[in-house]
Amino acid sequence: MDSNLSSMIDLSPGPLPSSLQLTREGKLRHFLTIEGLSPLMLEEILDRAEQFVTLPNKNQSKAPLLRGKTVINLFFENSTRTRMTFELAAKRLSADLINLDINTSATSKGESLLDTIRNLEAMNVDMFIVRHQHSGAAHFIARYAAPHISVLNAGDGHHSHPTQAMLDMLTIRQHKGAFPPLKVAIVGDILHSRVARSQIHALTTLCAGEVRVIGPRTLMPVGVEAMGVNVFHDLYEGLEGVDVIIMLRLQKERMQNALLPSAHEYYKRYGLRKEALACAKPDAIVMHPGPSNRGVEIDSVVADGSQSVILQQVSNGIAVRMAVMSMVMSAQSGKLK
Amino acid sequence: MDSNLSSMIDLSPGPLPSSLQLTREGKLRHFLTIEGLSPLMLEEILDRAEQFVTLPNKNQSKAPLLRGKTVINLFFENSTRTRMTFELAAKRLSADLINLDINTSATSKGESLLDTIRNLEAMNVDMFIVRHQHSGAAHFIARYAAPHISVLNAGDGHHSHPTQAMLDMLTIRQHKGAFPPLKVAIVGDILHSRVARSQIHALTTLCAGEVRVIGPRTLMPVGVEAMGVNVFHDLYEGLEGVDVIIMLRLQKERMQNALLPSAHEYYKRYGLRKEALACAKPDAIVMHPGPSNRGVEIDSVVADGSQSVILQQVSNGIAVRMAVMSMVMSAQSGKLK
Amino acid sequence: MDSNLSSMIDLSPGPLPSSLQLTREGKLRHFLTIEGLSPLMLEEILDRAEQFVTLPNKNQSKAPLLRGKTVINLFFENSTRTRMTFELAAKRLSADLINLDINTSATSKGESLLDTIRNLEAMNVDMFIVRHQHSGAAHFIARYAAPHISVLNAGDGHHSHPTQAMLDMLTIRQHKGAFPPLKVAIVGDILHSRVARSQIHALTTLCAGEVRVIGPRTLMPVGVEAMGVNVFHDLYEGLEGVDVIIMLRLQKERMQNALLPSAHEYYKRYGLRKEALACAKPDAIVMHPGPSNRGVEIDSVVADGSQSVILQQVSNGIAVRMAVMSMVMSAQSGKLK
Repeated sequence: MDSNLSSMIDLSPGPLPSSLQLTREGKLRHFLTIEGLSPLMLEEILDRAEQFVTLPNKNQSKAPLLRGKTVINLFFENSTRTRMTFELAAKRLSADLINLDINTSATSKGESLLDTIRNLEAMNVDMFIVRHQHSGAAHFIARYAAPHISVLNAGDGHHSHPTQAMLDMLTIRQHKGAFPPLKVAIVGDILHSRVARSQIHALTTLCAGEVRVIGPRTLMPVGVEAMGVNVFHDLYEGLEGVDVIIMLRLQKERMQNALLPSAHEYYKRYGLRKEALACAKPDAIVMHPGPSNRGVEIDSVVADGSQSVILQQVSNGIAVRMAVMSMVMSAQSGKLK
Repeated sequence: MDSNLSSMIDLSPGPLPSSLQLTREGKLRHFLTIEGLSPLMLEEILDRAEQFVTLPNKNQSKAPLLRGKTVINLFFENSTRTRMTFELAAKRLSADLINLDINTSATSKGESLLDTIRNLEAMNVDMFIVRHQHSGAAHFIARYAAPHISVLNAGDGHHSHPTQAMLDMLTIRQHKGAFPPLKVAIVGDILHSRVARSQIHALTTLCAGEVRVIGPRTLMPVGVEAMGVNVFHDLYEGLEGVDVIIMLRLQKERMQNALLPSAHEYYKRYGLRKEALACAKPDAIVMHPGPSNRGVEIDSVVADGSQSVILQQVSNGIAVRMAVMSMVMSAQSGKLK
Repeated sequence: MDSNLSSMIDLSPGPLPSSLQLTREGKLRHFLTIEGLSPLMLEEILDRAEQFVTLPNKNQSKAPLLRGKTVINLFFENSTRTRMTFELAAKRLSADLINLDINTSATSKGESLLDTIRNLEAMNVDMFIVRHQHSGAAHFIARYAAPHISVLNAGDGHHSHPTQAMLDMLTIRQHKGAFPPLKVAIVGDILHSRVARSQIHALTTLCAGEVRVIGPRTLMPVGVEAMGVNVFHDLYEGLEGVDVIIMLRLQKERMQNALLPSAHEYYKRYGLRKEALACAKPDAIVMHPGPSNRGVEIDSVVADGSQSVILQQVSNGIAVRMAVMSMVMSAQSGKLK
């Protein structure tokens, strides 16, 4: 029963029983992936998030929805920014939040992941926010977690980053309303991007009119068309007439791995500059999950331009996380009645 | 007056004046060691802790007992798990908690320990949770701390770990009721274990029927019998007929120090496996302070088996820490009236 | 628009438009430097701080003035002690506080400072506490921050440390009352000290009778007399008849840079010992921003003596920070009406 995460989770790479994320009554219990969730559920998350959106200069009132709850930021992979958004979301819901950086903690004493989980559960913890470099880590924890625990996936390997996708959907809906008429382009390293995977699932579930993925062949997953997207290798062609442009962050490691010639070359072909932006609809919005590499995947003029909604995405990130946290906790309390 | 902790505390290695832990009215002011506390006081801690025990799936309501109080986790030695249990306990009592890792802070600027303490006191801090690699560190701080400060020992060198001992006593009482009829065995590296020392004091104070210590000669303190325990070097013999088995964690450093031949050899002789467990009473409980080295001091089958109460110990750890925190703070406020 | 802080802030080293710190109605919006603030504003800070001073053994009640506000400790330079005082101040005002150590976070992903600021703003943060090794960093952030953000300078390069200066003023006022009759000596490394700069501005603004700076020529800024101070190179001469002695911390780096022969030599000439203290008025108070190097710039007998008010400075540090935090937040909410 001693767990070796990387081997165990590789044993179950298949599709997730969607029941794992939902209670018997169909409420959201964990939030691990967009895959398998109904359009209604996604809309519910967006509607709930909308209630938590506050203008930066408006007075924030603390919501007591998670008072007395303990949330653990269980980060196996460093990400200050994502950790902070979950921390802020938890605190604004009045939860107690504890950051646990697993590299520097119990596991260094040889404790297995499952032992760590069991111990945290025994401390009466209510929610794990899991970030992990291995695909499937959050699922694994959700599968073995005690019934009173909810697990939120804050990014696992190349697999999924569902809160990121939902904050993107929220931002799109705020600007464009309904999804069916929309053409959306996702540009960059599709192959390694958990963000792209989650966005594609969300967009197709919400019946976006067309989802395009644009990028070099070396960074395009084989058979990605099966996800319901159209593939482009030319940026200008791919952006033709789209309503929404989502730029992905380019990991520097890709250049070292010889998947790409150079950052400069990449920028020339796939960086979003004014000329490329002009191919999209005049009111197209420009998105990026951040932090952006200016001059690599996006020009500063565009990133800071009038069509950019990048900072609104950040604000929406807090609201979406508050929404999902309050939903899974209310599903938990419903279960107990 | 410039303090050199390691030298100063070696100057006072003798028994602690029990008055240091108690107010003039006999209430708990600091919690430094089990030694010298009355059975009544230990029972009061257990009774108070019992009120803070909540089932994992029951709604936690925040107790306001420490609202407005500031608690500092003053950790000179790293221990994520212990720090977390104190942090959770403090937050569930509505205290403000600040983690202060002393290796990476003021002392690196050459500030002495006493200066650090004086400065924290001046910041209107109310409680120090002290973890230190030197025996006597928490006593030293308590001795020199300002009157409005309470000190809790979270483990000092090989000396004492009183909250760990009390959570063990709570777990035993929950399963076995009264202590006098009980035979309790503590197994492993008795020599270096502050946990074992505190457990022995707690068990003898609570009049446990028999306390046995089991381990190799190299890991057994000379003259340990004077503490009121019976010594065994054979695991099977020592476990014969006991009600409670407490396994200790084996530090890997012991093997390097040539005190032990190998982990494998240790496991063969002192690891708790089914066969050894069968020597104890059929309803014996198995305890471990965690994190356990599966396959070194305990077999996974036993650690996860029906007689194991290891995770219950973890839950009780929060409750005991909440109990002690609220007791010392109420003793402080009583003093001020 | 990609920001390179060190170059950009060197472009604007001139005097700060005092309007940057104040709202149109003349209320404190940021707290970046003492320079340019009116005596009335400094007195207002001191009066407000006085209300937050509590005796260490008196029950602290939590002020709800910052409930629902998010404060970020944005530390580009490590300082456990200063960070803690801001954290305590924020928590005692019921704010949510998040520590962000910028060395180990977003900027390591190549994100520029301005991008970091923009992202934090988008997360609906209300206040940045900025500590930075470059002079002007807090000003830079204040200049570019969104309207709903307040910036407090927690020390920038050799430039300014205004909350430290104000806690010193509070301590002086508590002991000596009005400033005009006072002779105040600041002793040590004036050249590299942001603390000294801020103290001089505060003392001259509050019309202290005489401000003296004492130190070796190598550690004295050229033309410092223009700040309205009298310069001394002999400790005994400089301390003659003063009411207040402020010792500065000597950075060990100064010795390595050949600005000083040795710590021992420095102590002989500028260390505050009983004999030197005897030159001051008999009721002179001794101050130090801490942490002090005992035996380098101050003798332990003096640091712990009856004239020392060093620990009172620490207590006042929390009160002053609470005062400034509540003032800038109330200026913000006034702005919105």
